[in-house]
Amino acid sequence: MSYATARLPREKVFRDPVHNYIYVQHQVILDLINTREFQRLRRIKQLGTASLIFHGAEHSRFTHSLGVYEVTRQICDNFQRNYPMEIPGDGGWDDRYRLTALCAALLHDIGHGPYSHTFEHIFHTDHEAITAEILTSPTTEVNQVLRRVSPTFPEEVASVIQKTHPNPQVVQMISSQIDADRMDYLLRDAYFTGTEYGTFDITRILRVMRPYKDGIAFAMNGMHAVEDYIISRFQMYQQVYFHPVSRSMEVILDHLLARANELYQNGNEDESFVPHLLLPFFNHKFDLKDYLNLDDGVLTTYFIHWRDSDDEILADLAHRFLDRKPLKSAIFSEETQDLIPHLRELIASAGFNIDYYTATDNSYDLPYDDAYDPRVTHPLTQIELQEPDGSLRELSTVSDLVNAIRGKFSGDQRFFFPKEMLSPDSHDPELFQPIYDEFKQYIQNNQLIQPKETDHHDH
Amino acid sequence: MSYATARLPREKVFRDPVHNYIYVQHQVILDLINTREFQRLRRIKQLGTASLIFHGAEHSRFTHSLGVYEVTRQICDNFQRNYPMEIPGDGGWDDRYRLTALCAALLHDIGHGPYSHTFEHIFHTDHEAITAEILTSPTTEVNQVLRRVSPTFPEEVASVIQKTHPNPQVVQMISSQIDADRMDYLLRDAYFTGTEYGTFDITRILRVMRPYKDGIAFAMNGMHAVEDYIISRFQMYQQVYFHPVSRSMEVILDHLLARANELYQNGNEDESFVPHLLLPFFNHKFDLKDYLNLDDGVLTTYFIHWRDSDDEILADLAHRFLDRKPLKSAIFSEETQDLIPHLRELIASAGFNIDYYTATDNSYDLPYDDAYDPRVTHPLTQIELQEPDGSLRELSTVSDLVNAIRGKFSGDQRFFFPKEMLSPDSHDPELFQPIYDEFKQYIQNNQLIQPKETDHHDH
Amino acid sequence: MSYATARLPREKVFRDPVHNYIYVQHQVILDLINTREFQRLRRIKQLGTASLIFHGAEHSRFTHSLGVYEVTRQICDNFQRNYPMEIPGDGGWDDRYRLTALCAALLHDIGHGPYSHTFEHIFHTDHEAITAEILTSPTTEVNQVLRRVSPTFPEEVASVIQKTHPNPQVVQMISSQIDADRMDYLLRDAYFTGTEYGTFDITRILRVMRPYKDGIAFAMNGMHAVEDYIISRFQMYQQVYFHPVSRSMEVILDHLLARANELYQNGNEDESFVPHLLLPFFNHKFDLKDYLNLDDGVLTTYFIHWRDSDDEILADLAHRFLDRKPLKSAIFSEETQDLIPHLRELIASAGFNIDYYTATDNSYDLPYDDAYDPRVTHPLTQIELQEPDGSLRELSTVSDLVNAIRGKFSGDQRFFFPKEMLSPDSHDPELFQPIYDEFKQYIQNNQLIQPKETDHHDH
Amino acid sequence: MSYATARLPREKVFRDPVHNYIYVQHQVILDLINTREFQRLRRIKQLGTASLIFHGAEHSRFTHSLGVYEVTRQICDNFQRNYPMEIPGDGGWDDRYRLTALCAALLHDIGHGPYSHTFEHIFHTDHEAITAEILTSPTTEVNQVLRRVSPTFPEEVASVIQKTHPNPQVVQMISSQIDADRMDYLLRDAYFTGTEYGTFDITRILRVMRPYKDGIAFAMNGMHAVEDYIISRFQMYQQVYFHPVSRSMEVILDHLLARANELYQNGNEDESFVPHLLLPFFNHKFDLKDYLNLDDGVLTTYFIHWRDSDDEILADLAHRFLDRKPLKSAIFSEETQDLIPHLRELIASAGFNIDYYTATDNSYDLPYDDAYDPRVTHPLTQIELQEPDGSLRELSTVSDLVNAIRGKFSGDQRFFFPKEMLSPDSHDPELFQPIYDEFKQYIQNNQLIQPKETDHHDH
Repeated sequence: MSYATARLPREKVFRDPVHNYIYVQHQVILDLINTREFQRLRRIKQLGTASLIFHGAEHSRFTHSLGVYEVTRQICDNFQRNYPMEIPGDGGWDDRYRLTALCAALLHDIGHGPYSHTFEHIFHTDHEAITAEILTSPTTEVNQVLRRVSPTFPEEVASVIQKTHPNPQVVQMISSQIDADRMDYLLRDAYFTGTEYGTFDITRILRVMRPYKDGIAFAMNGMHAVEDYIISRFQMYQQVYFHPVSRSMEVILDHLLARANELYQNGNEDESFVPHLLLPFFNHKFDLKDYLNLDDGVLTTYFIHWRDSDDEILADLAHRFLDRKPLKSAIFSEETQDLIPHLRELIASAGFNIDYYTATDNSYDLPYDDAYDPRVTHPLTQIELQEPDGSLRELSTVSDLVNAIRGKFSGDQRFFFPKEMLSPDSHDPELFQPIYDEFKQYIQNNQLIQPKETDHHDH
Repeated sequence: MSYATARLPREKVFRDPVHNYIYVQHQVILDLINTREFQRLRRIKQLGTASLIFHGAEHSRFTHSLGVYEVTRQICDNFQRNYPMEIPGDGGWDDRYRLTALCAALLHDIGHGPYSHTFEHIFHTDHEAITAEILTSPTTEVNQVLRRVSPTFPEEVASVIQKTHPNPQVVQMISSQIDADRMDYLLRDAYFTGTEYGTFDITRILRVMRPYKDGIAFAMNGMHAVEDYIISRFQMYQQVYFHPVSRSMEVILDHLLARANELYQNGNEDESFVPHLLLPFFNHKFDLKDYLNLDDGVLTTYFIHWRDSDDEILADLAHRFLDRKPLKSAIFSEETQDLIPHLRELIASAGFNIDYYTATDNSYDLPYDDAYDPRVTHPLTQIELQEPDGSLRELSTVSDLVNAIRGKFSGDQRFFFPKEMLSPDSHDPELFQPIYDEFKQYIQNNQLIQPKETDHHDH
Repeated sequence: MSYATARLPREKVFRDPVHNYIYVQHQVILDLINTREFQRLRRIKQLGTASLIFHGAEHSRFTHSLGVYEVTRQICDNFQRNYPMEIPGDGGWDDRYRLTALCAALLHDIGHGPYSHTFEHIFHTDHEAITAEILTSPTTEVNQVLRRVSPTFPEEVASVIQKTHPNPQVVQMISSQIDADRMDYLLRDAYFTGTEYGTFDITRILRVMRPYKDGIAFAMNGMHAVEDYIISRFQMYQQVYFHPVSRSMEVILDHLLARANELYQNGNEDESFVPHLLLPFFNHKFDLKDYLNLDDGVLTTYFIHWRDSDDEILADLAHRFLDRKPLKSAIFSEETQDLIPHLRELIASAGFNIDYYTATDNSYDLPYDDAYDPRVTHPLTQIELQEPDGSLRELSTVSDLVNAIRGKFSGDQRFFFPKEMLSPDSHDPELFQPIYDEFKQYIQNNQLIQPKETDHHDH
Repeated sequence: MSYATARLPREKVFRDPVHNYIYVQHQVILDLINTREFQRLRRIKQLGTASLIFHGAEHSRFTHSLGVYEVTRQICDNFQRNYPMEIPGDGGWDDRYRLTALCAALLHDIGHGPYSHTFEHIFHTDHEAITAEILTSPTTEVNQVLRRVSPTFPEEVASVIQKTHPNPQVVQMISSQIDADRMDYLLRDAYFTGTEYGTFDITRILRVMRPYKDGIAFAMNGMHAVEDYIISRFQMYQQVYFHPVSRSMEVILDHLLARANELYQNGNEDESFVPHLLLPFFNHKFDLKDYLNLDDGVLTTYFIHWRDSDDEILADLAHRFLDRKPLKSAIFSEETQDLIPHLRELIASAGFNIDYYTATDNSYDLPYDDAYDPRVTHPLTQIELQEPDGSLRELSTVSDLVNAIRGKFSGDQRFFFPKEMLSPDSHDPELFQPIYDEFKQYIQNNQLIQPKETDHHDH
């Protein structure tokens, strides 16, 4: 029996609060879990700054990756039990792709770093490219495990994650509107945040999932389960992933890293303290090992140093991030966005550097899922429902609810600014009071508004 | 209205997966949560190394502290609604102590540092003393908030945590066999590990709790709920807190910090990398600020550096901790403990430094709860049940189950050793094979045994 | 202290799987629960025939009534704690109405009989009128309890249920789009059916509920919780309450009672067995006592007798109901409804009495909730959201999802027919085979269709 | 493919709140579920009078039977996947017994009637004998389905239920200390009562279960899961099954049926109303069809008639049962049981017929499980734990908790009497007051006591 097909003498389980148990049946999977690249994911939070709002959500990418593996395993089991390929091209499931699918599921996020979205924004890294590199570079333990399966196996697994693998069923298991990745993170994030709207009936969805020639479809009588999943996903985006306070903490993080980078580029960094593990990124010369040394704790350790920096802005932003002092925000629209330059002037008058203490942001910027972004021209695969007679119907032609979400979703755009503008500390100078008073007139019901025409024209 | 009694205009909630919501009603509590000392608890895991075994258990001391606060709040509400003091000394609840109780609940763990038990073992810190210092030192934000209530309030809150407060009801809320602390951590750890045995019916326990002159008792008709709590606690200790792999990871951590300390004391530390934030502890000269700069991420950041150290032992132990390579262990008894020196010799022959690669440990060493330790002479307060006519009966005189646990529990003692002794890597030298073969004869059913008298005498 | 305000010396609880505990604090409530009219509700299933599809859903109207009481109690507590009336007319909650609200909540379904909808259809009873009669007739124990509060109290409670009470907050607690009744039954039915789509975050909804001058509104920041409730309700209707097999069992029940009634009216009833407790209804002369003697078990006891009746149709329908032999159904549309007369002919040719073995039904006929029925011209009160500045906005102007449901929902219409038409028993006469073959051509994907132009024109 | 092995073209599921889904894969199982004998179980409550105390527990024997089937199916799957028989006698699982096991699981309770324990006490029926008869009598639909498998199959299935089947693994799946029956009812009763102490980790127990030559054992590393199950079972008995109010309602039921029987035997029954379906039982001449016509609703329908009987005792007991007026009870001991005759005298003096209004009962009388009854000489099979090397150890030699339950459990004995003795109605005659006053002196803390030597000797 080859390494590729070697089953463990007895299946191993990992206790998991979301799926109850994660079942590991292949030596390859166990070996991948034990690599240092995979263990590193324990030190990277799945939801980044969201745990500062939903305090239970401190779970890591490690637990999510195990979960995606487990969901994929269950899909393969169901497919093999009920819809095995009998002759090539019949649309059934070809179980020879099982290990490929399982490895791709387990490793799909292996290239993530700490606070990926923000980190990538400042340092121009790319977690998808790094994922591929971890799989295919001979320097990694992950690659060594995969190569033992076969010399081409690392590339094959990478091609699933890159959606170039020829078997559309394998690709859609990992990347589609209803894939193992999304199913796990919705359930997991709901569990750890303690929100109920993120739950849906995964057992039923797995049950109505079925392979066909061009990918994966869902039995028509499972339409409501699929619909419920879509609604749950929508609600998690609205209430958790797009939470304005979480976005404001990301703004602070972004500006903090930007400030540190700027100081370094200008030669103004603190001599007494060297952030060794970040230097390769400041210098734009990093290799895979440098990247794999990073985790959440490395960044916060540097923030602890920076909180005592002589640079006031660096110190203050590090304090705001570590000690959770979010910015405030207000929604703006096309009509009210012209007010922002004036508001920035007011904020500057109150003594803030507006480059570091204000921002605009819309929820599209968040990289969780491109499904809701109308600007994405090639959306993910559609969700297909299968009638008893085999014909397919696209979900939104059947479900009014899904149709409602699809066409109309618009997210929100927010202007972020220091909390002090609305609720000054007692030790703020009195002379700023008129500035604060004017500022307040522009905010109502958490939105920017054009103030009533009182006397603000005389500014 | 004074700061002490100031209620928030509208109560604030924190979404919590264990208690659903945490309700904050006092400005003082909100201000304490926003201090930097309290926010730091987000960066310290509640269960330390246990998350390496129960991967869901990545929750922090921050979430636990909020939970203890919430349970205490519910106890106060119940007491005030049903058993308010009417005349002093009647055994009823005096609601003037509510804020004291709430603050003590919230802050009872504020002095914890990263991996407290191990850290304290190596660096001789004391989280209880530090808790008191955080409350009473004018340098902390926590103290500043508490002092706004009254000049003596910091000391009063500290005295509850130190069990010297004159009101026994307040003390027992926070520290007794069934207190808000234990109730929260059992439920929370069960939730995040995904184990069910840790759950019990907290609503019912809160309902049957009642104040009396000397503390807190439980209605006799709630006996089974109390019993169930005791059993759940027992099972969590057996299965989670005393888990042998978790203990083995603590052994590695302990030896890793010891090695680093030793290298430093001997002047052998790595010149190119200075663990700034640990220096005060290596030098035995640290102040509160130094302590409050520490968190889990600081330690693991140093471990990442040390993993590349020139000192082989330091590098290897850091690798084993970061990349989760636990030691193996076997139970030993009074009869078999004499085998250990010979086993250590074998391990040394196989090339391991036995000071850093072996250990013995018994589960009593774990500092979670002194209730099960027969060596503790003054155990926690007994659990008293109250009959309808007001008379009290101690729980174990009523419950056979509790009695069974109380008298007989004995824990286990384990000998820890490198996994390589049982399952050598393919690249281990062949000449070690006879050593491994002999070693294996001493282990059966996870226990040390005296091998059958075969030919091992001829070694 | 009067009976009206008498609190129990210690609150009593009922263990409830949905709300954990039901808290009873008034002697009046405890006395009402102990009346024979209320205890009778234990013998009437909440969901009627739905338990034949969702086997867990065997819960009674008794448990639901306790649940509605408990939700109402929690609403009153929240209102009194946070929004008490300070001066009359200020829109705050007037806690003098608490007992009225609690009694109305507890008793709102007291007039229900076994399989109410169907029973009313055949025997022209009216559970709402009977509810009012139970409250106000001096013959009932319920009335005796209510009268002890005050002579006008029975009428006052009845007026809440009839929505004529002057306080709109009290009325909307019990009857509105989001009332205690609906919140309890959705959660309870979801719990007992084991479906997850019916759950929503009741704690959060109760938290964002607030009284105002014209009734009850919801804080704008609770919009998503309200939205989630609406979606959950929609999904429960789609998947549980409108389940086609459940509707088919109601068709059988309806036809069974109709047949028994017809036989009685024609003097053809079985002489050897008299359904004593139904006679008053056959005779159109029943009083309240007769009505209160009925329950599910009385009907099924008669069905057991009828299953052995000499009347073949009565016996067969009783068998189909007791032994769960549902009819089949297919969806029809305006285009395909003209096919039904021909299908009925085919069914008659196969030997079935089409009056008793076919039916058409649309889901609007189900009396659960008028919110989805476009034919209802005066729907329930709108759901109002309250902005921070106090202004109100109707929910569907804010939520795309709710808007989607509101405008487009269309339900389905089904034609019911014997299962034998699609899957004949082995002992069906062979000569019917051509009939069955033709019939099948009219059904595809569970819908009526115009068959392809084969040779069916020559019928 | 034979009927015996015929798998459904696509597996069917039943939504179940306890196991999420019940999976049906064989045509035989589906046909058995659709028999009238099995459907009848929908009309018989699983917990009888306990639903009068735990109002959620209205579930039927139908749902429990499906659950036992599902647990058995999962055990078979696990055994076949991990421990298949390879050569006869190797202790592995022989999957040819799967259908036998599944049918026995589904049908093990098919002979139960309404309120079985009490009914059997009065009418001398025997649900176990009737179960065997239903399986083997050619008059039943169940038998017809089983016979299609093979002529000897009905007897084979019956032999599993009667524990005479030669394969001990099959027998122990259905009847042992940890069998599918007990596992389902504990989880199900916990779910529907809403109590948490009944839950345990069934997934883990199923995982550590393994077949061996003489039956079924459990892996040593699953010891705590098994222990937790035993404790949960213990707590369910203590808190639900032995609940004193539930037992008091059974006393009333017992006396009610006894009274009706007595009146009939004496020719005193009500002429105007004939309880047709009970006559065969009054006459001691019933056949299987008579028995299968009974259900809970039949009995309560007769109680509704009897509530209006001219016989005061019959009418009153029917009222107490239907309208839930439990007796009170007090615990007695060997020392205090001699007080009972005097208490009965007092009760008689207050106007009660002591044959119908008092009773003694101990919890051993309850037929749920013989495991706790020290008088049972041949207890159920022991629970065996399996060490890694294959050796077996009996559970109580390993678990202190289990040992504690085994040796010491003693249950309680109670004396039941009318509530009026302790809390007289306002319309009770005043002259009884001294009787009540004396009676009360014998009860303290819910126990019989010898009153203090006051003046009661002068009665």
